[in-house]
Order: sequence, then structure tokens, then C-alpha cells
Amino acid sequence: MFSTVLIANRGEIALRVARTCRELGIRTVAVHSTADRDSAVARFADEAIQIGPPQPKASYLNVPAIMEAALRTGADAIHPGYGFLSEDPYISEICAAHGITFVGPPPEVMARLADKAETRAVMAAAGLPVLPGSNQTIADGMAAAELADEIGYPVIVKAAAGGGGRGMRVVDDPRDFRSAYQRTRAEAQAIFGDGRVYVEKYLDKARHIEVQVLCDMYGNAIHLGERDCSVQRRHQKLVEETPGPGLPPGLGERMGEMAVRGCRAVGYAGAGTFEFLVDTDGSFYLMEINCRIQVEHPVTEMVTGIDIVAEQLRVAAGERLAIRQEDVAPRGVSIECRVITEDAERGFIPTPGLLEEFQPPAGPFVRVDTHARPGYLVTPDYDSLLAKLVVWGADRPQAIARMDRALQEFTVSGKGVRTTIGFLRRILADPQFRAGEHTTSLVDRMLAEAARARAGSLA
Amino acid sequence: MFSTVLIANRGEIALRVARTCRELGIRTVAVHSTADRDSAVARFADEAIQIGPPQPKASYLNVPAIMEAALRTGADAIHPGYGFLSEDPYISEICAAHGITFVGPPPEVMARLADKAETRAVMAAAGLPVLPGSNQTIADGMAAAELADEIGYPVIVKAAAGGGGRGMRVVDDPRDFRSAYQRTRAEAQAIFGDGRVYVEKYLDKARHIEVQVLCDMYGNAIHLGERDCSVQRRHQKLVEETPGPGLPPGLGERMGEMAVRGCRAVGYAGAGTFEFLVDTDGSFYLMEINCRIQVEHPVTEMVTGIDIVAEQLRVAAGERLAIRQEDVAPRGVSIECRVITEDAERGFIPTPGLLEEFQPPAGPFVRVDTHARPGYLVTPDYDSLLAKLVVWGADRPQAIARMDRALQEFTVSGKGVRTTIGFLRRILADPQFRAGEHTTSLVDRMLAEAARARAGSLA
Repeated sequence: MFSTVLIANRGEIALRVARTCRELGIRTVAVHSTADRDSAVARFADEAIQIGPPQPKASYLNVPAIMEAALRTGADAIHPGYGFLSEDPYISEICAAHGITFVGPPPEVMARLADKAETRAVMAAAGLPVLPGSNQTIADGMAAAELADEIGYPVIVKAAAGGGGRGMRVVDDPRDFRSAYQRTRAEAQAIFGDGRVYVEKYLDKARHIEVQVLCDMYGNAIHLGERDCSVQRRHQKLVEETPGPGLPPGLGERMGEMAVRGCRAVGYAGAGTFEFLVDTDGSFYLMEINCRIQVEHPVTEMVTGIDIVAEQLRVAAGERLAIRQEDVAPRGVSIECRVITEDAERGFIPTPGLLEEFQPPAGPFVRVDTHARPGYLVTPDYDSLLAKLVVWGADRPQAIARMDRALQEFTVSGKGVRTTIGFLRRILADPQFRAGEHTTSLVDRMLAEAARARAGSLA
Repeated sequence: MFSTVLIANRGEIALRVARTCRELGIRTVAVHSTADRDSAVARFADEAIQIGPPQPKASYLNVPAIMEAALRTGADAIHPGYGFLSEDPYISEICAAHGITFVGPPPEVMARLADKAETRAVMAAAGLPVLPGSNQTIADGMAAAELADEIGYPVIVKAAAGGGGRGMRVVDDPRDFRSAYQRTRAEAQAIFGDGRVYVEKYLDKARHIEVQVLCDMYGNAIHLGERDCSVQRRHQKLVEETPGPGLPPGLGERMGEMAVRGCRAVGYAGAGTFEFLVDTDGSFYLMEINCRIQVEHPVTEMVTGIDIVAEQLRVAAGERLAIRQEDVAPRGVSIECRVITEDAERGFIPTPGLLEEFQPPAGPFVRVDTHARPGYLVTPDYDSLLAKLVVWGADRPQAIARMDRALQEFTVSGKGVRTTIGFLRRILADPQFRAGEHTTSLVDRMLAEAARARAGSLA
């Protein structure tokens, strides 16, 4: 096992990784921007190194500064968390050149899967179902529009280098295609430095179901069941749960087998996630593969009892996977709610500010992963995820009741700071959600209803 | 189900009960002393009623004030937590007279089991093994001494009305018997208002293993497995875990069956605990039965997934037990550490004071039940239990590593305040504890070693 791991991230995930390292007897190095010098992980880790100013480009994306910190502290591995450098094949290669292990799949696998159009092509060849669309990026707007006509509307234009719900645009009407195509290209270039896009059929009443996989370097691959992530605002997840409620019998298992097949096809190693869309008729389609720990991994941990970060570190260190597929026996239901400093009433705009009160809930079957505390300053420089509230229940009604209790208990206040807590409670109360019949359109429908109600009360 | 439950307790257990009530859709009434007017449960509950000054006799043991609060708020049940009135048959009877459900076994069962000497007799008749000793209380010192000689030393003199590790005295030497007998009687009279005592064989290298039971009013009784509570200071538990480490195969199951047999023998209903001593040869003996929720119940919840307080409320409300014995499938290992405001270095003396910092740990598979927060005043009026830190692990080494990580993370400070955190970490590091071979003498042995080490360093 590694003796020292550098954690190239911030926020809740950096602390979460550090906790598991400590449990495994691994020394931890936190790297942090000047804004995070007093952060939870900087205090928790065995060593903390300042690597730059608040702007991510100068700190958490600053590969030379991170590599220098790793070499200086004798780190034998770097854990990238999620976001930032976690899916960047470049840092993986640099690590390899310095004899440092990058906790993730091999660089060549990362490179292939970082390109979503390439992922489509490779996985389709391996026998995984993909949505009708282009099996490569399309640089010609006319050809793209023709393909869109062929697929049939609605379609979605996506950045090949996209992720985190950014760099994608749904087109309902052929007349809007050209402009949507151009705007997505421009946006992709601006956000990811890569303007390549591709086109795919868009399912507007679909479920977002993903499968957690775990693979070692010796060809052993297992899946840890599925997660339903259909509750999204602007393609970003708000509520996740496992198992997927109301899925046709056996569907999760079939998706799991497909994900394992996909892993074998590319020689995947490490933890990863296969994201699928499930249509109303139960047919499913691969969307993308995330080569990292996922924000919502705790729900899988709660039902399986498996510490996914610990397994990730073990296989990265060259250990054989000790868990066989038949050992994976999920129990009960787990739900995660993302407590985010955004104002749901005003289109989920970020509301940075200083936290005065911050009192997370606790008690039976409740887990809170957070880096925040009273006096924590939410800055606009970073993702506005404040805490992940995760509960477990013997069944879904118990899990929902427990989550609602925990949300009621969650106290966050600060001048100008708003959170999603109230909106999350409304989601839990929504009849469609309670019935497990919601799709990715749930949040938009709720927002539209709220807007109509406000308009009605003004009239 | 009940519509309103009054919680006749304070501290972490009051909050823990309130949380489950909320999840079950039950309105909660907290009663509190003037010292606790801003307590966690007073803030959490739907209604909070002040019932008296800090001294327990005037508030948490003040039956008229509690009954008045229950009647005034329309409570249809009272949950007593542990300690205070939880094992007092008197309040149970008064509740019944007012048409309010007392969450506990029927008053006549409580009355029988509150007398530990009577419990010995009833359970021996039902076929449960009890230690050699007196099957009734002994008011005659001479007869008691004769019995002690017959049993063979060491013996233990115990208050019939005792509990919580108080009102008991071990006697190693016949010459000390008379004085120990007299002092225990006097102490029992002072603490419990009942000077009756009995005598029992004392096992000095035993394991304290207890079994959680759950019974409804219709004769259905199950057990939820065992807990090892051998780590004790002055007969008070410090660390508890499940399953019992290193127990002979099948022993836990046999003890569970015995506990269920005991429940049937007395018509037990509700949640309860059968406490046994296990000798080095694997033979076991019933010590007492606790007719209430136990401090250490969370470890059982962690491995079984069962919310014991929820089940307790359900059966108290007259529901049938929905869990069958074959549904109870414990998974992994859970450990609880009691974080107490006592100075382990100075004989576990209480160290009251104002908490400046209070930051409990969190993260994967960690649960903290606590009523404390920064600014909380630890007063000498109440039990010094500050927090219960509970972890789960797939196996015992993982659970121990996780507990140690969590203890490292636990920050408590305040002028004059000491906690057991450091001592708990030393227990986890003890080779005998790690091997699962410790007995109830572990803490005394550690304290003696520490004293020798101090004497050595002074010499």
C-alpha cells in the first residue's frame, strides 16, 4: 500500500479521501489554495501545502505546483477526487513519468474515455447500447444538421470533452439546430479548450441510471449496483439513490453486466461509473463513462458496506480486487441530497457568503460529508456543493422519511446565503418522486409549477 | 401509531428518540430542567416544556410535573429513554391510570425485573443459567456471610434495585465481607431508596455479553444478536461492540435463544436487554435484565439495519412485531465508544465545564449521537456522557481503524474539561483488545500499568 497520498482536490471530497487514507494507515498531504488555508482537509491531513491563489487554474488545476508538492513530500500516489484534474490524462502521464501513481485508470484508458464521442464508438463496438447519434465528433454544421434530421428531434449537441453537466444543449426544433450547434461549439471551446461536439438523440422522459464499477489491473471487474440520478437541475444532479426505484425487474443487473463488459473491452482499472439513460419502455443507452470517484458514491457505500475510496486505493496500489461479484449484497435503500449554496427560487444562482450557523444533522443511519463549519466562507471560485446528506433506510419510505427529518434538522445560515434544503424537501414531498416514477424532467416541472403558482398569486 | 410522544429524558438519548419520532410522523414534546432550556432536544422537539430546576429529583425524576406536561400537551405516550424513570414501575402504572402509554414492558413485568434478586429466581426457574448466589435478598449479615463462604470467593454484593453499575461491591477476602455487605446496603439505601442486597459468585476474568431482545404484546419475541460490553471502568461501560469478538462458535446464538426463552417466561413486551457474564470456559450466566433502551443500542442498529427505537414505539402502540427472527441478518462489525467528560488519568473523575470547541467526526460509516455543541455547559447535575461515537466496519480490524480515525478527528475543548478520547484510543491500541481476548478486567489492568509507568518515570 502507499505510504503517502497527496490529495489534489478540496472541499468535502478531499476530506473524505483523507479519512479513508488515515484508516488505511496512509500519510496524507493536502494541497490548497490561499482561500483554503484553514480548510477542514488542511487541518486534518498530516501535511498541508499551499499551491496557489484561489482561482482553480492557479491552484487546483496547476499541475506543476501539485507535482512539486508531491515530489517534495515524498508522495507515492496522487488522489484527484472528482472534477479538477480527475479526468485529465495529462497529469496521469506526468505522474507515471515521475514514478508516482495516479489514482485512476491507466492514462491511455482515460484518454479514450475522456472523448465522449470515442466512448460511444468503442462501447457500441463492445456491444453496449448507445443512443442513435454520431460515432465521432462533427466539425461540419451542415452534416450535423443532416444527422439530426435523420435521428429525429429532439436531439442533444454535446461537447466531446464535456462533463459535470456542462457543454450540452437540447434542440427541439430543426430551425434552432444551427445556432445551438454553433453555441455549444463555442462554449465547449471556452470551458474545456476543445470545441469538438457530437450529436445524439435526446430522451426527454428518461431516467438517469448509472452503474458503479470496480476493477483491478488483472482483468477482474465487478459492479456495485446502480444509482438513480434522475433528479437534476440543468443536467446537474441534486438527489441520487440506490437501488433505482421502480426499475423493471432485472434491469439493474443487466446494466451492471453491460458495464462490466465495457470495462473488459477497454482494460479499465480503478473505480468508475457508467452513465445510462433508461427510456420509458425499459430500454437503456450508455451516455458516458466517468473515470473517477463520483460525487454520489456514498449511496452505494451505504447499501453495500464497501468503502469505495479504500478499494480504489487498493487496486491503484496493485492489489487484486478482494471482492467478488457474488460478495456484493446491497441491503436497503440509500438516498443522497446535495445541499448546495444556490437559490432554487431564482434559477439556482450561486449565493456565496460567510456561514454564521452550520449545524448538520446526525443520528441513526445519517451520514454527512462536508468540509463546511460555522465561519466557513463560500466563495464564487469553487463549486457550490456545501454538504452531501446521505441516509439509509430498510425501505424507500423509511429512507425518505429519514431524509426529510435530517433536512429539517440541517441548519445553515449566513448573510445572503441560500441553500437547496427547502427545495430538496419539496422534491421528497412530490407525489411522482414518492412513487419512484420521476424522470429527468422532474425539477423543470416543479420549477414551472412554482412559477405558475407565483404568477397565479400575483394575478 | 401515537400522535404525540413526550420524551421524559435529556441529553443524547432524548434527541435520538425525538429523531425517530419525527421520522414516524409523531409529534414530540421535550421536557427539560432550567439547565436544559436551550438543549438540542428542546430545540428539535415540536414543543418544549420546562419541568423544574437542574436537580434530577426536581425535574427528570419529578413524576407529577412530567405527568402534568403529558396531559397538558395531549401526549398519548411517554418515552423514558434510559436512566431516570425508565425502569420505575411506578410511573408506568400512573401512565396506565391516565390512559397514556408508557414505552416499556407492562408495569407488572417491570416490577418483577426491577428486583435483581427476583429476576435471578424467575429466570433460573425458566431454565436460564444464573451464577451461584442467593435467589432472594438477604437482610441477615450472618446468613449472607455463610452463603458467601458456600459460594466461594470472590463474591459480589449487589443492590436488588441497582443499575448503571452502581450499588455493587466485589469481595475477595472473607474478612472483608461484613463491612462490604453493610456498606453496600447503606449505599443502596442512599442511592435507590432500597437497601436490599443479594450475594452472587464473582467472575473476575469474565466477558460481559448482553443480548438485545424485541417483543410485542402477542407473544412474539426475537433477539437482535449480542453485544460485548467488557470494557468497563467501575462496572460502567466504556466501549461496546457487536458481534462479541472471539466468542466460541454458536455461543451468541445460544445466548439469544435463552434471552427469548426468558422473555416468554415473564410475558415481556418492548425492547430489552439480557446481560450475561461469560466465563473463560464459555459457560454463561444471566446477571440482569434491563427493561429499556440501552445506551449501546446503536451498535446493534448498525449491523442489523433495524431502528430499535422505532420498533419499540411500534410494539408499545400495539402493533405486531413485523420482523421475524430469520429476518435478522447482522452484517459486519460495529463498535461504540463513550466520549465522557471524565479524567481517565485521575480515576475517571467528572470534569464539568463549558465547551469551547466541539467538533464531532463524520464520514463513511461513522455515527455520532450527541446533544453537545460549542458553548454547551457540562454540569455536575447529570451523567457525564457527552457523545456516543459509533462506527461500522466490514470486519473488526476495519472497524477499529475507523474508530481510531474518528477519535483522532473528535475535537472537544473547554476550560477544565477532560474527556475519555485519549484513553479510548489507548484501549483500541491494546494488544489484548485488538485480539478480542479482553475481559472486564481490561481497564483496571491498563490503569495499573499506567500507574506503574508513572511511578517508574518518577523514580
